[in-house]
Amino acid sequence: MGEFELLAQIRERLPAAGAQVRLGSGDDAAVTVPGGATATSVDAVVEGVHFRRDRASLAQIGHKALAAALSDLAAMGAEPGEAYVALGLPADLGEGECLELLDGMAALAAAAGTTLAGGDVTRAAELFLAITVVGHADSAELLVTRGGARPGDILVVTGELGGAAAGLQLLADDARVDPPGVGSTLASSLRARQLEPRPRLAAGGALAGAGATAMIDISDGLGGDARRLAEASKACLRIDAAAIPLAAGLQEVAAGADRDPLELAIGGGEDYELLASVPRERFEEAQQAVEEAEKGMKLTAIGEVTDGAGVEIRLPGGAILAPAGYDQLA
Amino acid sequence: MGEFELLAQIRERLPAAGAQVRLGSGDDAAVTVPGGATATSVDAVVEGVHFRRDRASLAQIGHKALAAALSDLAAMGAEPGEAYVALGLPADLGEGECLELLDGMAALAAAAGTTLAGGDVTRAAELFLAITVVGHADSAELLVTRGGARPGDILVVTGELGGAAAGLQLLADDARVDPPGVGSTLASSLRARQLEPRPRLAAGGALAGAGATAMIDISDGLGGDARRLAEASKACLRIDAAAIPLAAGLQEVAAGADRDPLELAIGGGEDYELLASVPRERFEEAQQAVEEAEKGMKLTAIGEVTDGAGVEIRLPGGAILAPAGYDQLA
Repeated sequence: MGEFELLAQIRERLPAAGAQVRLGSGDDAAVTVPGGATATSVDAVVEGVHFRRDRASLAQIGHKALAAALSDLAAMGAEPGEAYVALGLPADLGEGECLELLDGMAALAAAAGTTLAGGDVTRAAELFLAITVVGHADSAELLVTRGGARPGDILVVTGELGGAAAGLQLLADDARVDPPGVGSTLASSLRARQLEPRPRLAAGGALAGAGATAMIDISDGLGGDARRLAEASKACLRIDAAAIPLAAGLQEVAAGADRDPLELAIGGGEDYELLASVPRERFEEAQQAVEEAEKGMKLTAIGEVTDGAGVEIRLPGGAILAPAGYDQLA
Repeated sequence: MGEFELLAQIRERLPAAGAQVRLGSGDDAAVTVPGGATATSVDAVVEGVHFRRDRASLAQIGHKALAAALSDLAAMGAEPGEAYVALGLPADLGEGECLELLDGMAALAAAAGTTLAGGDVTRAAELFLAITVVGHADSAELLVTRGGARPGDILVVTGELGGAAAGLQLLADDARVDPPGVGSTLASSLRARQLEPRPRLAAGGALAGAGATAMIDISDGLGGDARRLAEASKACLRIDAAAIPLAAGLQEVAAGADRDPLELAIGGGEDYELLASVPRERFEEAQQAVEEAEKGMKLTAIGEVTDGAGVEIRLPGGAILAPAGYDQLA
């Protein structure tokens, strides 16, 4: 199947375009009429670096690539709008597999109210996806950067942490037997946390509406992402490890692998939850807004913003962990 | 050098942000405030498929990747705005080479009035660049699609065709000796047509302003791109081959390689000139507008739009060539 035929088939599978899209895929460029400000982010994933085809289905690979990109829009509190996808396809990837990849993306796009508005397809030695997402807000001031955390603000996270790391552990173990205390339903849901993360778009919008002063998505681990928020805000983030909401099953998976659950929750990454700072007096409003925005979603206070720099995580024993972050090309 | 350090170095080299950019690279997403409509296009290039590191410098690779993306904005008549770059970097690419790649992109971005507003960097087995460009217009109606050519319109092209194909021939020959009749200056300029194409942004804007009814950039060859414009417009494009403006030196390079210069001009591709249809009564206005917009640039009438379908190219001997286009994944 050639490029244009594949593109035509891809176009047929795209969900209907959003209101701001005047012209979708198929011309030199897509045409949109944004109402106010736009937030734009790019995320690229590469086979062997970010995913393995023997551990994830092509639909999951497509889903996760788009989810990771949309998560950056969630972290701005932006309304998701359009996605543009560049695909590098290896010769051994069949037509059906290409379309499965796309279906995974299209399903998430539809669920997230995002229009797949354009893209490019090329041959490549290894499978890669580079996804640009565009979100919208009525004005630039309504978008939440990493730089606005102020001393006195409460630090909050959405959902639970460590689930994606536990899922990765389960996938890495190639375990046919789930660890003690982890039933097959729970094990499946942990694997899904790793393979099919859900961008917290509604929660991000709710936090922005409730006055969040700074926000970042937890893609590289709470420790490293907190450090980036602290640096951008020129403030210190003090986190109480005992307050971090741990994913159900994390304790058991960690025990089975002889690992520290907190290490997985703080350093594991890929949870795609949101870390935000909110003014102390608006914390309850933020909590309520998030719970209303996403059914079953909790917002948990895990610490506070103070004067100073860096991140200090107080461990249950009283020791202070200062995550150095990391700097790897991955 | 790690990802964040590299990103920090990259950020330092970026030219100043354009007026519509409220927040550039470094947060979860870039923030812009577009005035009216936006045109967005994605273009991905992969080592071994689109370029070879032994034939092009890294600065040229960066330049050409961005040029190809911006060429799609030119074909919409959009004002260039922002570019977002996903880079896949192989392990053998050193820090200096990464920065050279970026410098090539940044130089073109500055010349083209484009802000490099964000990106992502990842490890990859082979070098790839996936570039999303966003252009602007006061309203969606001012952007020119491929679909508006009407019977009676004059078909025009900017500049000269076949230069990039001739340059590729010179590069492929690995010729230390330039062909008879091609001086070293001309040979260099043909190689530059292949390695450092210039997106026709000003000409595209001028054509849009002069009422172009349809427009496409000639990236895959006049024959194939004309076919796409004909299909989108549901019309027939009749082209007089004798009227096609051939690049200086093309005849000589083609003769030296025992190839037909018209074949190179029609099928060669990568000239990144514009093919457009303009109402007959506005042809002279369009010609003048393009000449004023880009110094030394000519606009040439090469045929007309008629009822029917497809593309008919009348060759000098009287034969009619109906390019089937092609459909390869490249």
